[in-house]
Amino acid sequence: MTDADQHDADQHDASQHDASQHDGAGAGLQAGTTAQGVTAAAGFRAAGVTAGLKTSGKPDVALVVNDGPEAAVAAVFTSNRAQAHPVIWSRQVVGDGIARAVVLNSGGANCFTGPFGFQTTHLTAEAVADALGVGAGDVVVCSTGLIGVGDQTFRDNVLKGVGLASAALSPTGGPDAATAIMTTDTKPKQSVVTEDGWTVGGMAKGAGMLAPGLATMLVVITTDALLTSDELDQALRAATRVTFDRVDSDGCMSTNDTVVLMSSGASGTTPEVGDFQEALTAVCADLAKQLQQDAEGASHDIAIEVVGAVSEDDAVAVGRSVARNNLFKAAVFGNDPNWGRVLAAIGTTDAEFDPYAVDVSMNGVRVCHAGAPDEPSDAVDLTGRETHVLIDLGVGPHAATILTNDLTHDYVHENSAYSS
Amino acid sequence: MTDADQHDADQHDASQHDASQHDGAGAGLQAGTTAQGVTAAAGFRAAGVTAGLKTSGKPDVALVVNDGPEAAVAAVFTSNRAQAHPVIWSRQVVGDGIARAVVLNSGGANCFTGPFGFQTTHLTAEAVADALGVGAGDVVVCSTGLIGVGDQTFRDNVLKGVGLASAALSPTGGPDAATAIMTTDTKPKQSVVTEDGWTVGGMAKGAGMLAPGLATMLVVITTDALLTSDELDQALRAATRVTFDRVDSDGCMSTNDTVVLMSSGASGTTPEVGDFQEALTAVCADLAKQLQQDAEGASHDIAIEVVGAVSEDDAVAVGRSVARNNLFKAAVFGNDPNWGRVLAAIGTTDAEFDPYAVDVSMNGVRVCHAGAPDEPSDAVDLTGRETHVLIDLGVGPHAATILTNDLTHDYVHENSAYSS
Repeated sequence: MTDADQHDADQHDASQHDASQHDGAGAGLQAGTTAQGVTAAAGFRAAGVTAGLKTSGKPDVALVVNDGPEAAVAAVFTSNRAQAHPVIWSRQVVGDGIARAVVLNSGGANCFTGPFGFQTTHLTAEAVADALGVGAGDVVVCSTGLIGVGDQTFRDNVLKGVGLASAALSPTGGPDAATAIMTTDTKPKQSVVTEDGWTVGGMAKGAGMLAPGLATMLVVITTDALLTSDELDQALRAATRVTFDRVDSDGCMSTNDTVVLMSSGASGTTPEVGDFQEALTAVCADLAKQLQQDAEGASHDIAIEVVGAVSEDDAVAVGRSVARNNLFKAAVFGNDPNWGRVLAAIGTTDAEFDPYAVDVSMNGVRVCHAGAPDEPSDAVDLTGRETHVLIDLGVGPHAATILTNDLTHDYVHENSAYSS
Repeated sequence: MTDADQHDADQHDASQHDASQHDGAGAGLQAGTTAQGVTAAAGFRAAGVTAGLKTSGKPDVALVVNDGPEAAVAAVFTSNRAQAHPVIWSRQVVGDGIARAVVLNSGGANCFTGPFGFQTTHLTAEAVADALGVGAGDVVVCSTGLIGVGDQTFRDNVLKGVGLASAALSPTGGPDAATAIMTTDTKPKQSVVTEDGWTVGGMAKGAGMLAPGLATMLVVITTDALLTSDELDQALRAATRVTFDRVDSDGCMSTNDTVVLMSSGASGTTPEVGDFQEALTAVCADLAKQLQQDAEGASHDIAIEVVGAVSEDDAVAVGRSVARNNLFKAAVFGNDPNWGRVLAAIGTTDAEFDPYAVDVSMNGVRVCHAGAPDEPSDAVDLTGRETHVLIDLGVGPHAATILTNDLTHDYVHENSAYSS
């Protein structure tokens, strides 16, 4: 008997945020108390507690439990070869497609902390397992914070947090969990899509692309749809490829990035593959947009839309080269429509195009046409936060959009004085 | 009969800067009036004049002329596919191994300026050719400044500058030329090595690696050693590979980067290949160090030394990944020895190593050993400008050092409000 019985999908009313129906501009949070994030789907409980890991005294340990009846899981991790202990551990956990819980801590990445650090991850999983009556091998562990932090005090606090969180588990605990995983995030990030009889909900902490930077990106997504772990895996990879993988706030790849998707099957409904893919992608896109909007120190949210590419890979490569160009990003901070820096950036890629046949528009004004100035740059207004760069390579039918931010004084400040 | 007769190598006294004997810390400029840069070698004249391209009214057109008797040339250009008109032109000029002059302007990159821009480059070369009585196909053209700048006013000013510079040519004009090519540089950059009977001298404007950023990097090097263009080409590629290619101030690759090496043969001496390589590399290393020290907005000069690699390519890739990591660079700005960001950066490379067997030292303190904290970070003093990061991959005998700078408020400011 679990609390899942008290918390089924029909509790979610029409005010529930439907990420598939809007522009991804974070309206999920506007849904207020109905935004349950990871506890929106039936069969899940969550908690967020304060264990003393953060010097600020804010919540720092979150726990998300799948009460079933099923326990299917899929996950994607950072592609950085420098992987934190929780990543190494959790890769093993999800290998058999089964997980019962995800425990997450802020206040320390437990990365490059030696054998002691790996033991801490193991002990954390065991503590969760003991509290829930499941196997430690079914507990995913995520950590975020400074690399190199993972001493005895860290371990003691995490284990204390596991005890507190286990006792605080609630079918409405999603928002608390979303708050406890925040580091430099200024607001919790949740998103939910409810379809006919089943739900997908999630939480995230920032920021950047999956395999990005700033702080680590951690995402937990839950669903009560009845799906196998293989189906989850396929859907998750397809969704992250076009969402989290295309947020590239500062080009720096974390050691701890993790996206976990758990299915309880509590709805008893197996959706059409396409429908589930659509809902999952909408939740991921919404969370990705929220990550961009809350990126450290940013004053512009920049969408770099690349069209006319011979392949989607080319479009992504071109967009990413602009997203990682400090000169371009600093120019946007200064409201300077410096399209020359866009062309200089894309010229560094191997994508197929003629640099002298490219068009570049900024916020609707085509400032470069076929390798020469077009409309005057003065006509471009970059004073708003939303910034759109359109790059037409003119050689094919494929497109992709990369989300990034500007390079600001605040970015430099926050990252030169970082402490979690 | 040329002015070269009045200006042979024995004019250079012992106070001449010998780049091969010091740490590359820009001592060349301290040699004062004897630092002749591109006019240190016999057979060259140069000038720097004010043509009105810069709104500041500072010098903006430089001319370097090889009076022979030989006219061998070699050059390397940006690897950016987005290439400015002067680069496209100059590639053709040096193709036959012969060049008589290099004309350079600041105040506009003449890149993505349409067919008119290319015609401007062509007309510039013709104007120099007419003034000197040589062929336009033997005149290298370099431009630096904003991309997209290259209208009729730009053309008129450049051509006016060619006239003024031709009239001002002098066998002691090196320093004037070095001043005229400055953009955001705060000081001219010159270096000279004098060997027994022959000399190598050069000038540069910043900054970054060859194929870097900030502003464009332009370098002109002259020698009176008697060498073929093939010998020059081989020596230049070997020298730039370990000097300019390893300065990576902000990872942004310019559309205009050019390094030109001209030989007059006026000394009548053909040095041993190894001796010439050594002298040329010393001049390039000295100029590269000066570029790093004058990088826009920088408060730290960071040398990232990678040792224990299985190949030099691996060492370069690892060093470059750190040099391009904004989080690491912002941390150095804040005097924060955040070695976790070093490991997170190198984990993104394909280089051969075990992330959990890497040692990292900062300014002599080994803060990470075998994937765990070692000496306390508190022991690292980053308050000085010179910063040394030592990364021991522990898997081979190869090494490389990449030079970069920190990411500062001033960098963001200068590049958000850039105008040349």
